Amino acid sequence: MKNILGNNVTVTLFGESHGSAIGAVIDGMAPGIKVDEDFIRYQLDLRKPVGQISTPRTESDNFTILSGVFNGFTTGTPICIIIPNEDTKSKDYSEIKNKMRPGHADFTAIAKYNGFADYRGGGHFSGRITAALVAAGAVAVSALKSKGILIGTHISQCAGIGDSEFKNYEQDIAALNTKQFAALNDSAAEEMKKAIVAAKSDGDSVGGVLETAVIGMPAGVGEPWFDTVESMLSHALFSVPAVKGVEFGAGFSIAGMYGSQANDEFYYDGQKVRTKTNNNGGINGGITNGMPIIFRCAVKPTPTIHKSQHTIDIETNENIEFTAGGRHDPAIVHRARVVVDSITALVLCDILTGRYGTDWLVR
Amino acid sequence: MKNILGNNVTVTLFGESHGSAIGAVIDGMAPGIKVDEDFIRYQLDLRKPVGQISTPRTESDNFTILSGVFNGFTTGTPICIIIPNEDTKSKDYSEIKNKMRPGHADFTAIAKYNGFADYRGGGHFSGRITAALVAAGAVAVSALKSKGILIGTHISQCAGIGDSEFKNYEQDIAALNTKQFAALNDSAAEEMKKAIVAAKSDGDSVGGVLETAVIGMPAGVGEPWFDTVESMLSHALFSVPAVKGVEFGAGFSIAGMYGSQANDEFYYDGQKVRTKTNNNGGINGGITNGMPIIFRCAVKPTPTIHKSQHTIDIETNENIEFTAGGRHDPAIVHRARVVVDSITALVLCDILTGRYGTDWLVR
Amino acid sequence: MKNILGNNVTVTLFGESHGSAIGAVIDGMAPGIKVDEDFIRYQLDLRKPVGQISTPRTESDNFTILSGVFNGFTTGTPICIIIPNEDTKSKDYSEIKNKMRPGHADFTAIAKYNGFADYRGGGHFSGRITAALVAAGAVAVSALKSKGILIGTHISQCAGIGDSEFKNYEQDIAALNTKQFAALNDSAAEEMKKAIVAAKSDGDSVGGVLETAVIGMPAGVGEPWFDTVESMLSHALFSVPAVKGVEFGAGFSIAGMYGSQANDEFYYDGQKVRTKTNNNGGINGGITNGMPIIFRCAVKPTPTIHKSQHTIDIETNENIEFTAGGRHDPAIVHRARVVVDSITALVLCDILTGRYGTDWLVR
Amino acid sequence: MKNILGNNVTVTLFGESHGSAIGAVIDGMAPGIKVDEDFIRYQLDLRKPVGQISTPRTESDNFTILSGVFNGFTTGTPICIIIPNEDTKSKDYSEIKNKMRPGHADFTAIAKYNGFADYRGGGHFSGRITAALVAAGAVAVSALKSKGILIGTHISQCAGIGDSEFKNYEQDIAALNTKQFAALNDSAAEEMKKAIVAAKSDGDSVGGVLETAVIGMPAGVGEPWFDTVESMLSHALFSVPAVKGVEFGAGFSIAGMYGSQANDEFYYDGQKVRTKTNNNGGINGGITNGMPIIFRCAVKPTPTIHKSQHTIDIETNENIEFTAGGRHDPAIVHRARVVVDSITALVLCDILTGRYGTDWLVR
Repeated sequence: MKNILGNNVTVTLFGESHGSAIGAVIDGMAPGIKVDEDFIRYQLDLRKPVGQISTPRTESDNFTILSGVFNGFTTGTPICIIIPNEDTKSKDYSEIKNKMRPGHADFTAIAKYNGFADYRGGGHFSGRITAALVAAGAVAVSALKSKGILIGTHISQCAGIGDSEFKNYEQDIAALNTKQFAALNDSAAEEMKKAIVAAKSDGDSVGGVLETAVIGMPAGVGEPWFDTVESMLSHALFSVPAVKGVEFGAGFSIAGMYGSQANDEFYYDGQKVRTKTNNNGGINGGITNGMPIIFRCAVKPTPTIHKSQHTIDIETNENIEFTAGGRHDPAIVHRARVVVDSITALVLCDILTGRYGTDWLVR
Repeated sequence: MKNILGNNVTVTLFGESHGSAIGAVIDGMAPGIKVDEDFIRYQLDLRKPVGQISTPRTESDNFTILSGVFNGFTTGTPICIIIPNEDTKSKDYSEIKNKMRPGHADFTAIAKYNGFADYRGGGHFSGRITAALVAAGAVAVSALKSKGILIGTHISQCAGIGDSEFKNYEQDIAALNTKQFAALNDSAAEEMKKAIVAAKSDGDSVGGVLETAVIGMPAGVGEPWFDTVESMLSHALFSVPAVKGVEFGAGFSIAGMYGSQANDEFYYDGQKVRTKTNNNGGINGGITNGMPIIFRCAVKPTPTIHKSQHTIDIETNENIEFTAGGRHDPAIVHRARVVVDSITALVLCDILTGRYGTDWLVR
Repeated sequence: MKNILGNNVTVTLFGESHGSAIGAVIDGMAPGIKVDEDFIRYQLDLRKPVGQISTPRTESDNFTILSGVFNGFTTGTPICIIIPNEDTKSKDYSEIKNKMRPGHADFTAIAKYNGFADYRGGGHFSGRITAALVAAGAVAVSALKSKGILIGTHISQCAGIGDSEFKNYEQDIAALNTKQFAALNDSAAEEMKKAIVAAKSDGDSVGGVLETAVIGMPAGVGEPWFDTVESMLSHALFSVPAVKGVEFGAGFSIAGMYGSQANDEFYYDGQKVRTKTNNNGGINGGITNGMPIIFRCAVKPTPTIHKSQHTIDIETNENIEFTAGGRHDPAIVHRARVVVDSITALVLCDILTGRYGTDWLVR
Repeated sequence: MKNILGNNVTVTLFGESHGSAIGAVIDGMAPGIKVDEDFIRYQLDLRKPVGQISTPRTESDNFTILSGVFNGFTTGTPICIIIPNEDTKSKDYSEIKNKMRPGHADFTAIAKYNGFADYRGGGHFSGRITAALVAAGAVAVSALKSKGILIGTHISQCAGIGDSEFKNYEQDIAALNTKQFAALNDSAAEEMKKAIVAAKSDGDSVGGVLETAVIGMPAGVGEPWFDTVESMLSHALFSVPAVKGVEFGAGFSIAGMYGSQANDEFYYDGQKVRTKTNNNGGINGGITNGMPIIFRCAVKPTPTIHKSQHTIDIETNENIEFTAGGRHDPAIVHRARVVVDSITALVLCDILTGRYGTDWLVR
């Protein structure tokens, strides 16, 4: 496996930032899932650069579904969605072909692809590729929703500013999924945006933390070795550009607790089994326990900044100082939010289809 | 994939805590790797319960290599290693068959396996299974060492007590791999042990954080989508019982940095490309850059404690209060260290074999 | 795995006969393979319907490479090639939506996809999809050629008429790859074509056998359990529509031999190890021995014929008699030839890349 | 993937002919399948060498289930079964370490494993390994039987002598599964055995063809690209040592038919859809149509014979003439029968579990 995610429901991504198009192929999705092109567009819009807090590169994201959808429903055969690249300014990049941007994949791409990779705009490493993932993920998000499985992500931290915590998952998820800038607390959102704009005007960038809640997952899904739910999700999440940490439930803070604090006590709430706390983030032994799945992703600040940095020139083999040109995001955490939702939905469709069979999502 | 890890070098684990044996099958390992049974034993000893800080269950871990090794070298065909279970006291568990230990996989195992799983001692979810992983990993650790790739893990935090930081990776790794309790700082180690003993005497347990360094990895290894080095490692690490968080480089703290702080500037050190800082943990865009790979795992406190807890009885369908009997670890972070090393080695062998071919590890 | 072939080099196919486009994604191909669009076009032309012996449906097969190729070379990232569908006459099919063509996948598609599959022109089951495979395979064929690995397939039998046998593999392969109708013996070719035309004028169809030779493969490639070279190739070949049998070397006739006849005796030809006969088709114990890989595929007659047949109507739930309309091939064996070459090339690239590493094909 | 078969239910084989034990790990099997050790023993006995027609090597095949079975039922976690090797005479082989037996994997094993493979008794390439497969397959055979899916294989041809054809699948399968030498026609069986004994007394060996029928498979299972049922089965069957051809339904003879002959006409038999003929062997477009799945495997004569043959000595680099010593089978087709049943059952469990979910086999 390389550019393929999943076992029973798989997604393949292709495309380069400045190529003719990017796209995704989803395979293994149940036949009979309603495909709402407006919802795909809606999700793509959540990812779009907006206002001062994002890159001025604008893409219409006019996707086309080439296959796998017929009369408005998935057919069960591979779904290919492509999105043409329109607003590309390749000349911005040709001059820096040999100047390795710190924190970016320029150097590792050369080490891996022996100089044959498309370097324009970061090529296959560009955040641009995530648009295809969002389009693919929209189908998965819809499928899960029809089974009562809901996903919501908020910017729990950005530029050092914290958001409120989840209070009512169902309401909070609903609210988040209507917001372009997904903070639970609107005044925190405003502060975060200001911090992003400030970083931008300084030629710099900021990062953040995304916290995701998934509700409605049945208990008993996942594997002990090696495809735990945490394993499957983290595998996917760590392939989202800029993610450098993933934690579930109490995460790193659980390391400082006593067992008597960390353990989530079970109780019967009528027929349903629940836990009083959720330090394990809905997962015990790699398997869902029916409580909300909770995780957080650390998103690093965008590596491309407009400040002078030291680096190397691989043509001249010299240490140099340079300042990146081009159009870039002063933060991506707010745009990465829907990417996290999308890839989470795809992973969950994969796990659930493996557990319950090909048609479960439409049963 | 389920109980199989890896693509080109795979490992399969089998066994239950109180079954006749546990074991592992490794496939895809290069032929011609020297297999040192003393080193396997050494690694198994690092995992063994020792003194007051561990369970009194003692296992001789007398492994047998059933296949795949001939005249002291790997043959290239599947290596099966088994370890008999000896010191099992199944009666300890029969009484709690229906009482779901908080924080443990008792309940999720029932939800998944419909009541057919072997519940004795946690069955397939027991930390006992990690002994097989350590035995398998020892082969991988040896293979990597012969290529100059070294792995070391220290307990960077336990029960709230912090260890020193890595100073000289090569020396620190060498030192760690001789320690039964792997802290860099010996006095920190003593404090940690005291805290573990204190928790034990209180019937409680503590967790910790493991920090791992890998040096000697070539640049240019890994995939952009979806098999990033972070993805592959986190997938494996999150299947180690009790791990609830994984972060690379600066990890979660990178989320609060500016791009100008987070970016690791490149420079030529003679012919070699290095970075001044290593906030990205040796990985850019999912691909190794030749710097040390650095990651941390959050290990939760052992869920089985000897304090009274609320939970459910699935036979009577009642909310109950109970105190677990049996023999248990007041902490596992010190024993998990070699498990992390082992699984890391297996993942790296997989990635490197995929990148450079079947025989690279012995070339 | 479903619509994905391969482990280290993978290919995914998508598209329906009467959708907007079909296509393929190849992943894992070495960076730096020269991509010759003329050669892709050439291979696609070998698959095209020509003259009386094929369907009158004409497709320009104007493919577009959306990704993974930059400045004329593979980048190492996923290659997506799409081919728009142009000459579709969907009304031909709407009337037979519910009439299950005998020998075709109409009924099984409904059983699998619950009625959501695109039935027009056979949908995803149409031979049309093989055009995408041929385009993808052309890249693999080129890559192998640069390493001295050559593939040639001839129609060893069609409508009961036999072709000559391979005499000089290198010359025969070269000759076959210039022929639109790939028989070694030109007069046999003429007879075959006449038989095809005769079947057509009778509203019927004919089948045939394709024999493939691969020369230049290194010895020592393949796995004993379960990824033998025969396993990998047959897996791929049996997914080519209409293939109902695959045999290697002497194939089914080896079952009637004595061991003393069947065994291929080894000898040194200078430094090189050869066998006097090749009843094992270049493969012993699942692994290449350096001799030509030889296999044959049985291709059934095209199921869609213009004769009256009994079948079922799934709307009325009645047994009916009907005659298929639409445009169809009276034989596909001559068009399937390049499909077999293509998929063989992709499988071999996968196996070789797994054995020798990512860059071997361009080393 | 290498020594792993399957996606949702996987099987891994390990062991060498003269190592301490061989074995198999099955993963992904539903929890709650009754495991009947007597039936495993029964299946192993069908594979055993018997009388004059087999090798005098006798193995008690005293298997042990190390994991994955608890209280007589599968737990859902990996099942490891091991079988110790007892009657090994390794000195028989040491003298021929460097003499490459024609038709065997001696040479290709060296090309692949660089001389590190265990050469004793054919090592991992020995037919001995199939005992582990039969033990693993017995669990799968039982699971399928409980769902009404029955598998039977007969020796349709041996040493040029043909067996009768299937008449009543259900009765014939039942009868075959009680026979040590699985011909439908008892007098044909006697002739075959005589031919085997005759070949043996001549120091030679014979081959044969196995024909398998599977009844009770639901319609709608399999994939169009690339995991057709034919692809999945042939992948597995071609990894059984000595299999050189696989064909479904009419197989190679379909290539000489007209479409009007080859097409299997559908009809309603009450509610059930059937076909009048079964030239497609129960599979259309790669997907089951509910009719019996029929396939045949060509099994080559045992390569090890007691006649003088030309070959090479890789130590001296000379062309030599030699006669193999040791104990060998004059035919394996009758012993391979249950191996084919076993691997077929494992593949079908994999496909069905992928289609209908983890618990379908016990639902």
